Amino acid sequence: MIKDNNSIGIVVPQKFVLGNEGEDALMLDCGKKLRPVTIEYETYGKLNKHKTNAILIIHALTGNAHVAGYHSENDKKPGWWNDMVGPGKAFDTDKYFIVCSNSIGGCSGSTGPRSINPETQERYNLTFPVITIADMVRAQYRLMQHLNINKWLAIAGGSMGGMQALQWTIDYPDCAASIIAIATTASLSPQAIAFDWVGREAIMSDPNWDNGNYEDKIPEKGLATARMLAHITYLSDKSMDMKFGRRLGKLSNYNYDFSKNFQVESYLEYQGQCFVERFDANCYLYITRAMDYFDLTAKNNGNLETTLSVAKASFLVISFSSDWLFSPKDSKKIVSGLRYNNTDVAYCNIQSSYGHDAFLLETETLTSLISDFLKCRYKSVKMEMDCVW
Amino acid sequence: MIKDNNSIGIVVPQKFVLGNEGEDALMLDCGKKLRPVTIEYETYGKLNKHKTNAILIIHALTGNAHVAGYHSENDKKPGWWNDMVGPGKAFDTDKYFIVCSNSIGGCSGSTGPRSINPETQERYNLTFPVITIADMVRAQYRLMQHLNINKWLAIAGGSMGGMQALQWTIDYPDCAASIIAIATTASLSPQAIAFDWVGREAIMSDPNWDNGNYEDKIPEKGLATARMLAHITYLSDKSMDMKFGRRLGKLSNYNYDFSKNFQVESYLEYQGQCFVERFDANCYLYITRAMDYFDLTAKNNGNLETTLSVAKASFLVISFSSDWLFSPKDSKKIVSGLRYNNTDVAYCNIQSSYGHDAFLLETETLTSLISDFLKCRYKSVKMEMDCVW
Repeated sequence: MIKDNNSIGIVVPQKFVLGNEGEDALMLDCGKKLRPVTIEYETYGKLNKHKTNAILIIHALTGNAHVAGYHSENDKKPGWWNDMVGPGKAFDTDKYFIVCSNSIGGCSGSTGPRSINPETQERYNLTFPVITIADMVRAQYRLMQHLNINKWLAIAGGSMGGMQALQWTIDYPDCAASIIAIATTASLSPQAIAFDWVGREAIMSDPNWDNGNYEDKIPEKGLATARMLAHITYLSDKSMDMKFGRRLGKLSNYNYDFSKNFQVESYLEYQGQCFVERFDANCYLYITRAMDYFDLTAKNNGNLETTLSVAKASFLVISFSSDWLFSPKDSKKIVSGLRYNNTDVAYCNIQSSYGHDAFLLETETLTSLISDFLKCRYKSVKMEMDCVW
Repeated sequence: MIKDNNSIGIVVPQKFVLGNEGEDALMLDCGKKLRPVTIEYETYGKLNKHKTNAILIIHALTGNAHVAGYHSENDKKPGWWNDMVGPGKAFDTDKYFIVCSNSIGGCSGSTGPRSINPETQERYNLTFPVITIADMVRAQYRLMQHLNINKWLAIAGGSMGGMQALQWTIDYPDCAASIIAIATTASLSPQAIAFDWVGREAIMSDPNWDNGNYEDKIPEKGLATARMLAHITYLSDKSMDMKFGRRLGKLSNYNYDFSKNFQVESYLEYQGQCFVERFDANCYLYITRAMDYFDLTAKNNGNLETTLSVAKASFLVISFSSDWLFSPKDSKKIVSGLRYNNTDVAYCNIQSSYGHDAFLLETETLTSLISDFLKCRYKSVKMEMDCVW
């Protein structure tokens, strides 16, 4: 039974298919076409008459379309940003119509490497084209058209979701009144590329991976290792000190072997195991590669000012002081690029010890920032509407 | 042909065996005894009449006894700290007698998991006892006795070498006139323990590892993955930006696959490959575990001030501004603990973008700091000697 009073309640996932016979396929950055493409999405709240209250929330690397609420009465866990999306919450479902879709390349309902290729009737696996952040956005744009929305009131996302939000503003500058970019970057750093590389090496070295063609035996160990590594980058040195320190787990002394001994080791092992049950190894390869390839400035020789000159939205950029994966420095670059172009931008670096994970944990501070920002944006969009209608 | 004018020249590695029949075995922290134990070491310069000029240099995780000079006329590479040790260098072999030994548990001449167990005539592999930093120091102490040295003028080490230097000052406070602790910590952080855990998981997940009993097929992939991961922690975000940025390797555009594409990926792959050729997988497990277990304060409930109250040496503590593995914060804790006890300590945080690797690269700055420090220590030891003799 759901005991969450402020919950949006039961949500039913929906599917949209693009690129069926007679429709345009999805054009990809790599030059290939993909069709048909299923996009799993969820919506919360109601779209108003003038369609001015639609907000797109975009998930991070291993997230999915299920941002809030429950899938059934017996569902044990709500969506991944349940504290942020619901009646009276930051993304207030009494006011706004919220949409969240699973990114293509993923494994939570949208077309990805584990989907069946209709041409072969077998899984794509490594024949799936390598996709980019811009490709993910291109698919979301098709979903937007399908939903008959002309302009998002806001596009919001943390981490990889923030990258996509930024990409929207470059590729479809007229399609969003505002952008909320949280704990993100305008281009992946070599350090992050390096971590991704090592994670993928762990997966691809697992004999069960079988060049991506695993079926019964999945590359559990490789995927768990990749996840454990990534997990370290989501926490801060300080949060690990506070959460685990050098405390031992169940043992009262060193075990003098290589099995888990420290609490932090048990935690990582647990995180690795949980992840293997909910995420797919090939998808992990594809989505990390999409992040590696993310460089908003690529077409402008690395010049962020020029790149952002096309942006028309109002921005709220948020970073977290202890985030070392997508650090405050990365956010400040985005803010500088926007200010250079006299683009409306509010920036907040939230003091937090949670590291990159803070975007999922500092919901109270995020709520006050985001709900105010959205109220202003909504008011201003309504005023524009009053003039037009 | 050696073209290095300031080189110490050809050095011959030596071996010392402790714990032969009739001699004390090496007592280990885990409660086990180890015998016999071979220690590979090298010496540079000459021990003076009063044995007051002996300096022990201790290597880092994957280092060895070959700190400087060449093993043959055709040797392509000098020792790992060749810029620091030699005639007229920081560790001036015209003045000082330098000793460097391969830590036990290693794979460069000293007894470790790949050595033959005399009782079974087979490799120890995982039957080798799990050793600690204090065990490594206990073995070095036996080498000191063998060399008829009563007191080191200095014990110097970076990273894991610095941990051992600190351990010396607690376990044998009368045996060193000074300690040079570079880019190190008084106890391994949970973040570093976590990285070690993931590295070991990569090795132990490699089917070639075979529970440590590999022979013909070595766990190359696992070891390379562990090394690549560790390597990221040795560099700084900034140094990776400067060294690689998002530059592509040989390709002019994204290859849209999972093979190496970015320069940073080629670099990591190369580092992994080189490492597999020079280091052993089981040794990597044992030595990283020794580091995990390193907590100088363990016997004093985490109290560093109490722990350091026994220290009698003069200290030079050095950190590097961009080192995030063993950060300036870690060094400052050591310095505070020493100052609390009114122990003589000089501290320098060197501004460097090289990250943890700086202790091997910032040799010019290190030279000026260390040569002055040693001159003073040597002068003061000689003055004491003049009074005694």
